[in-house]
Amino acid sequence: MIDPSATGAALLLPEFLHRRAELTPERVGLVCAGSRWTFADMDQRADGVARRLAAAGVQAGDRVATLLRNGTAPVLLLHSLARLGAVLVPLNIRLAPAELAWQLETCGASYLVYESALHGAAQDGTGWRALTLVAVETLTAGGDHRPGEALPHATPLRRHVDLAALQSIVYTSGTTGQPKGAMLTYGNHWWNAVGSALNLGLQPDDRLLASLPLFHVGGMAVLWRSVLYGCTAVVHERFDPAAMNAAIDDEGVTIVSVVAAMLQRMLDQRGDRTYPPALRCVLLGGGPAPRPLLEACAARRIPVVQTYGLTETASQAATLAPEDALRKLGSAGKPLFHLELRIDCAGRPATPNETGEILVRGPSVSPGYYGDDQARPPTSADWLRTGDLGWLDDDGYLYVADRRDDLIISGGENIYPAEVEAVLLAHPAVAEAGVTGLDDPQWGAVPVAAVVLRPGVAVTEGELLAFCAGRLARYKVPVAIAFRTELPRTASGKLQRRRLPNPGLTSPPA
Amino acid sequence: MIDPSATGAALLLPEFLHRRAELTPERVGLVCAGSRWTFADMDQRADGVARRLAAAGVQAGDRVATLLRNGTAPVLLLHSLARLGAVLVPLNIRLAPAELAWQLETCGASYLVYESALHGAAQDGTGWRALTLVAVETLTAGGDHRPGEALPHATPLRRHVDLAALQSIVYTSGTTGQPKGAMLTYGNHWWNAVGSALNLGLQPDDRLLASLPLFHVGGMAVLWRSVLYGCTAVVHERFDPAAMNAAIDDEGVTIVSVVAAMLQRMLDQRGDRTYPPALRCVLLGGGPAPRPLLEACAARRIPVVQTYGLTETASQAATLAPEDALRKLGSAGKPLFHLELRIDCAGRPATPNETGEILVRGPSVSPGYYGDDQARPPTSADWLRTGDLGWLDDDGYLYVADRRDDLIISGGENIYPAEVEAVLLAHPAVAEAGVTGLDDPQWGAVPVAAVVLRPGVAVTEGELLAFCAGRLARYKVPVAIAFRTELPRTASGKLQRRRLPNPGLTSPPA
Repeated sequence: MIDPSATGAALLLPEFLHRRAELTPERVGLVCAGSRWTFADMDQRADGVARRLAAAGVQAGDRVATLLRNGTAPVLLLHSLARLGAVLVPLNIRLAPAELAWQLETCGASYLVYESALHGAAQDGTGWRALTLVAVETLTAGGDHRPGEALPHATPLRRHVDLAALQSIVYTSGTTGQPKGAMLTYGNHWWNAVGSALNLGLQPDDRLLASLPLFHVGGMAVLWRSVLYGCTAVVHERFDPAAMNAAIDDEGVTIVSVVAAMLQRMLDQRGDRTYPPALRCVLLGGGPAPRPLLEACAARRIPVVQTYGLTETASQAATLAPEDALRKLGSAGKPLFHLELRIDCAGRPATPNETGEILVRGPSVSPGYYGDDQARPPTSADWLRTGDLGWLDDDGYLYVADRRDDLIISGGENIYPAEVEAVLLAHPAVAEAGVTGLDDPQWGAVPVAAVVLRPGVAVTEGELLAFCAGRLARYKVPVAIAFRTELPRTASGKLQRRRLPNPGLTSPPA
Repeated sequence: MIDPSATGAALLLPEFLHRRAELTPERVGLVCAGSRWTFADMDQRADGVARRLAAAGVQAGDRVATLLRNGTAPVLLLHSLARLGAVLVPLNIRLAPAELAWQLETCGASYLVYESALHGAAQDGTGWRALTLVAVETLTAGGDHRPGEALPHATPLRRHVDLAALQSIVYTSGTTGQPKGAMLTYGNHWWNAVGSALNLGLQPDDRLLASLPLFHVGGMAVLWRSVLYGCTAVVHERFDPAAMNAAIDDEGVTIVSVVAAMLQRMLDQRGDRTYPPALRCVLLGGGPAPRPLLEACAARRIPVVQTYGLTETASQAATLAPEDALRKLGSAGKPLFHLELRIDCAGRPATPNETGEILVRGPSVSPGYYGDDQARPPTSADWLRTGDLGWLDDDGYLYVADRRDDLIISGGENIYPAEVEAVLLAHPAVAEAGVTGLDDPQWGAVPVAAVVLRPGVAVTEGELLAFCAGRLARYKVPVAIAFRTELPRTASGKLQRRRLPNPGLTSPPA
């Protein structure tokens, strides 16, 4: 855990939503699920949720996991937990029960706030450990105070946040077979939002559209930017290309955050119709974008701005400046103002155009992973090794060659082969397993597997797939599994995932 | 001195101008005195100035005073000193020799960088102490490197700044008869620029116009915002209302920073012509604005945004949001996002609409005055007592009733009566002295004095004025001195400046 008082780095700011409501109470802060709330509305409702959480026993320092689809509830949880000094652990709703249980256990969560529609998943994921389950509907209805409701109004709600304090633990796919919980501080989010504004600008009439999951850092970042900038966040409950396009037309959206697969579907849905000029930035993250998509957008004058981001950098690390969008097509731009970025080649700085590992440092970089003794205060001058590969051109623009070693990005979700392989290897029939990504026109990539069976046993592809489906989020389950007598390995025995036999598949059914 | 390593609050960022030049080298950063420099130009020139300063002996921690009129030189000094870790002490060029000498002495300056036109003032102010004089022309000509110039190119120039490190010492008029040197850190400026952007927005095509002196915090703040935002700063060498109006028309200026006297003269010069719509913000500081001026601007749809600022808050502390400009005419708005503001009535919080002392705290507040043992790290939660009086209305909007007790603001310059009285009392003929402000249509106010002479001596008004003129900046010299047999005092003997006899003067000759 970070103890800011020990590092001396404490820096108190007014709690973000409450301050925003003090400054511009009447501006619309959130448009979501039929609601249209001013910042004053949001502030009042966040107080109500915070008091109900306190009544349920939540205290400062508690880890409160959430299992919520996009909607107004995760927005209110984000802000109400700040008012209690509790730590948000936003769980991916697509996780399998075993994955949920593992994350709940390792973060030491005391509470799980879930929505009724996900009741089964919540139960499945928590049945085996002590955890207080809280149905989100008991927290969010009725605003600040319901008639007749007895609430501990004396609960002291925090009106300040310490930038060095832990705000959330966000799980990222792990390179070693298990996801890791990246710790993010209030300062990480603050610096990210400010750095983004210094690059993309900030207009009082900006409206930010997100249909990215709010349990990912990219979705959360939209919520923080909305509150810090005083701009409306338009949050969609799920990705629907027609709804996205309609919101751009009808809601005066100026900035959308998408991944490549979403953008492609938006273009497909829209046909030849242009976008209104108010749409000033399509922030495209989630991995290297296909060049044909970028070229199609450039031809249609869609202001795509590619970004390279990580959970560990509280979203954007590098983003192309709007003025370079066409000149540097395919680049993720330059680091945000407050971040430094360098390319490392086996310990020495890369020369221009030489590919190496991307390193970043600065105040929006996570202090570490929860439970990792290496966790450090956010003022550290250490470099974060991203594991991603890229190069800088002669002008210092970043090109991302490949997300980490073997990382598969499917529709914006990260899939680490090692994590899927670990599940396959847990099956008694499997001796060796290898997983790699297969290009996919819709999702960017999908996982495929190859296995070597133990001698004398028999198992079908369907049985293995069913085994995976019980233990992995659906998007991580291979679309096909090939049976082999051996897997390609280096002389030292290291699996060569890129040489795995291509099962010759096309896209799975959507 | 602040020792950030002792507070643990060190937070390294890329050095501001150098980072900006890395990110957007080709954008125009400065338009001034016939020059039009990109950020790359500025970066290269700042390196040259830094190397020449190093060759002259300047080292990290040195206090380097400047005596410079507005121009490109103070811009380059600001950034080049950051590259040496030296501390800027920007002196007011209107100071009298005795005032200059006192400030140079108390800040412990080792160097004075002056321009040739001010050679006499520099010599007068420094003749009595050891100080290395550096003519600015020897630093600034020729960009990064002049042909044939031998420069210590090995001088390691800093490419990072610590937000907790001391950037400058800026003298403010003192309430006790002597100016005080407010210490400002890089973090103070960073937070001020960010807080301003979160209020006023930030557009990549913004152009910021300043004819405010760059040795005042309001002028410096424009330079920092330009570099952090990546916007052009248009700097005028002196205030000329016709030149200001022409720059707004011809240079695409979007934001101007002015004080009331300047704005009035701009309106007078312009007559009935409207301003172009690109002018989105007239940031009006330097003391409470006359209501007729605000009403005249509102009637002409000039987007005046009133601000309340202090040297000790690195410029803006509270600023009206653009959307409230008409609805809250006369208010200085709400505090910047990162600052807290409260009104103190003898130790208790004021009720709405009750006048009291304005208190502020937050990361843009100066850690203290140079040489003051009370200096504290910038993460302190202490409140700064501004000495200014004001109230908050029912909606939390600040109205500044009066700048500090008895403060006279004349054309944006602060004059403390105690400082002028101390000079009058130094004359052998003067037994008592009182100074107060007289309303003035052009300057807002001008100082007037009343004195009681010692028995049996004789002196003329002209002799006393000449005495003052040798010891005070011209704007501080009273426009008239009345001779009295006694001054109004309270029962306890405290001077009642507001009851000083009005000499019945009108405005002095311009």
